[in-house]
Amino acid sequence: MTIGIDGNRLIARLRELGEIGRDADGRLIRVALNDAEKQGRGLFVSWLKQAGLDVVIDRIGNIFGIWRTGDPDAAPIMLGSHIDTVVNAGIYDGCYGVLAGLEVIDALKCHAFESSRPIIVGAFTNEEGVRYVPDMMGSLVFAGGLSVDAALAAVGHDGTVLGRELARIGYAGETEPGFVTPHVYVELHIEQGPVLERDGIQIGAVENLQGISWQRITIDGTANHAGTTPMAMRCDAGQAAARVITFVKDHVERAGTSGVATVGTIAFHPNVINVIPSRATFTVDLRDPDEAKLKAAEAALADYLGRLAAEMGVRVATERLARFEPVVFDARVCGLIEQAAREHQLSVRRMTSGAGHDAQMIARICPAAMIFVPSRDGISHNPREHTEPDQLVAGANVLLDVVARLARESAP
Amino acid sequence: MTIGIDGNRLIARLRELGEIGRDADGRLIRVALNDAEKQGRGLFVSWLKQAGLDVVIDRIGNIFGIWRTGDPDAAPIMLGSHIDTVVNAGIYDGCYGVLAGLEVIDALKCHAFESSRPIIVGAFTNEEGVRYVPDMMGSLVFAGGLSVDAALAAVGHDGTVLGRELARIGYAGETEPGFVTPHVYVELHIEQGPVLERDGIQIGAVENLQGISWQRITIDGTANHAGTTPMAMRCDAGQAAARVITFVKDHVERAGTSGVATVGTIAFHPNVINVIPSRATFTVDLRDPDEAKLKAAEAALADYLGRLAAEMGVRVATERLARFEPVVFDARVCGLIEQAAREHQLSVRRMTSGAGHDAQMIARICPAAMIFVPSRDGISHNPREHTEPDQLVAGANVLLDVVARLARESAP
Repeated sequence: MTIGIDGNRLIARLRELGEIGRDADGRLIRVALNDAEKQGRGLFVSWLKQAGLDVVIDRIGNIFGIWRTGDPDAAPIMLGSHIDTVVNAGIYDGCYGVLAGLEVIDALKCHAFESSRPIIVGAFTNEEGVRYVPDMMGSLVFAGGLSVDAALAAVGHDGTVLGRELARIGYAGETEPGFVTPHVYVELHIEQGPVLERDGIQIGAVENLQGISWQRITIDGTANHAGTTPMAMRCDAGQAAARVITFVKDHVERAGTSGVATVGTIAFHPNVINVIPSRATFTVDLRDPDEAKLKAAEAALADYLGRLAAEMGVRVATERLARFEPVVFDARVCGLIEQAAREHQLSVRRMTSGAGHDAQMIARICPAAMIFVPSRDGISHNPREHTEPDQLVAGANVLLDVVARLARESAP
Repeated sequence: MTIGIDGNRLIARLRELGEIGRDADGRLIRVALNDAEKQGRGLFVSWLKQAGLDVVIDRIGNIFGIWRTGDPDAAPIMLGSHIDTVVNAGIYDGCYGVLAGLEVIDALKCHAFESSRPIIVGAFTNEEGVRYVPDMMGSLVFAGGLSVDAALAAVGHDGTVLGRELARIGYAGETEPGFVTPHVYVELHIEQGPVLERDGIQIGAVENLQGISWQRITIDGTANHAGTTPMAMRCDAGQAAARVITFVKDHVERAGTSGVATVGTIAFHPNVINVIPSRATFTVDLRDPDEAKLKAAEAALADYLGRLAAEMGVRVATERLARFEPVVFDARVCGLIEQAAREHQLSVRRMTSGAGHDAQMIARICPAAMIFVPSRDGISHNPREHTEPDQLVAGANVLLDVVARLARESAP
């Protein structure tokens, strides 16, 4: 098609929004519902109004810009992502999908594109989950996976209550979350991983999203003097932890699936050079796009922990921190993404999302898919997060084409 | 012999000294040169004077009680240990050897025992090394292994300078450390390990002391998203650390020596559940009574680290924190310990000390040996440190007999 998004404005707005929430050291900290995020929301709402969209805020603070066009009773096409950030964030994660969605609607609207149905861009509350758990909260509530009252009662790490903070910053809307069920949801996002860059691919058509299993494992042994306790008389919690850490990696590699396993945190007690650790606490992050394989990895870990307890005489306790099943995105929408990319002479590949996104929640209520663009060095959640401007613009134009195709289809 | 030590007084004094340095939570914290240790030193000096001994304080603050008897020009028999403690300590570590040494001299003196040479009991400064490094400092300086001026200039973890603290608490003596070279040194100590209790042995004749090698290892990899980074593209510092931890244990066990290996401390960076660790820092404590085997263990670790760096693409840095060669104690004195134990109908066994002691420093300048008594559950550096009173008294009487035999031998 001949319509294109305003690439310069997209890049300028990403940078302008990215300046909101800087601390004295220049770190971007626009954490959900803090004063900086209020300011960011205000800026986004002003841009929605500037585009002539209706602004709707729901009870969990999700912000929607609605282009009321086509059949007013038809289910809308929804685009979106989030504008909250982690601590010391980059400027693209989430904001790219939201601002590109706005550019897409603006481009179609300015060209008097005849859409069969309304088109909405949404910014979902608290995707990052830095201050309040769970993450992806706004989209989860919107999709009916968590009651709005439970979400409003969430207490943050800083002791604040989410509902009160939402009211304080002026974003406690009156509309019920889920006030509309989208016809389709498409989310554009930076990959946050190294695969597209490594393989020189410009566009990822995200066909599924890994299931996630987070556990905290605590191993209790016996503290003893490092010099005077023979090896055979030890009950070393640190040794047991090291064996688990190597096991989880070796297991997913042996399984040969696309699953991944990560031990990101660890602590020994008493953590003294000449004392055998009495306790080791660490986390295990398992992911797999295939639920059966994710369950198999969990089962293999549980089995290994049982054997380890018996062999080493340690006590093992596990605590589930998070668990999401894999999500399969809509194959037809993925096909449209591939088609649009090819028409733009962009290399494209179907791929799996390793990270969680709002799309996985909205996929509960309508067909959904995601578009990825490359992340330099695969880095995200970091000030070094970067995607080249031409790649950002190319991704937004692919989104535009996908939306235009969907919007041309007659509404039932 | 018919002389015996005053067992009730030994136990009472251990408990009295053990009450000095309790914090509000009842934890014993009589760390080198703090106010509590000053008070403990004062109590010990008062007991030395009560026994009619000459009190000598040297420039590093070592306290000696000297029974000037026999040939005044003959090299003295020296007994001793230390009265400083770790944080949240038990009451026996160190204090037992010092107070039992005083009881031995007192018993011989009261019975007008005819010693061929003077007998000295010493309490060495800063054996534990909690506040100032190195540990075993007072005995090391006394044996000429560290200059007194360097030791006095040591800066503590709390920013204090050792020499100033020594002056502040009134124990900066004027006598040069090493003012006398002992004829022989015997140190009585709790085992601080589980071997005697496990095997039902009452007395350990310590024939050697393990060499100690302490290293801090830092492994640098690359932080990345735990969900989006395929296993094959990772450079996971935590995985590398886990492999080293299992290696050191497996290596010493395969080597089948009496060596031990411990990883007591660890830290990951950034230590976040869904981020692959960019850095892992941990300590390795290797010990072996055989210097060649200790060197072999160090070499095997270095070799493994080199291979790991090559295979996993991580960068590895090692820092030596401490290194002491193994010490072989005097075989003749060990024989006297065995003989004395048997005459008391006590089971006895030659053994290795896994922990460091002042005896290993004094062994540089004269024949030395140690006597161990069992530690309940092998526990030390802990309020649960315990040895039964009858075992403490039995050990002190073995020390008395050994000293009496040595003191009967004619001075050259």
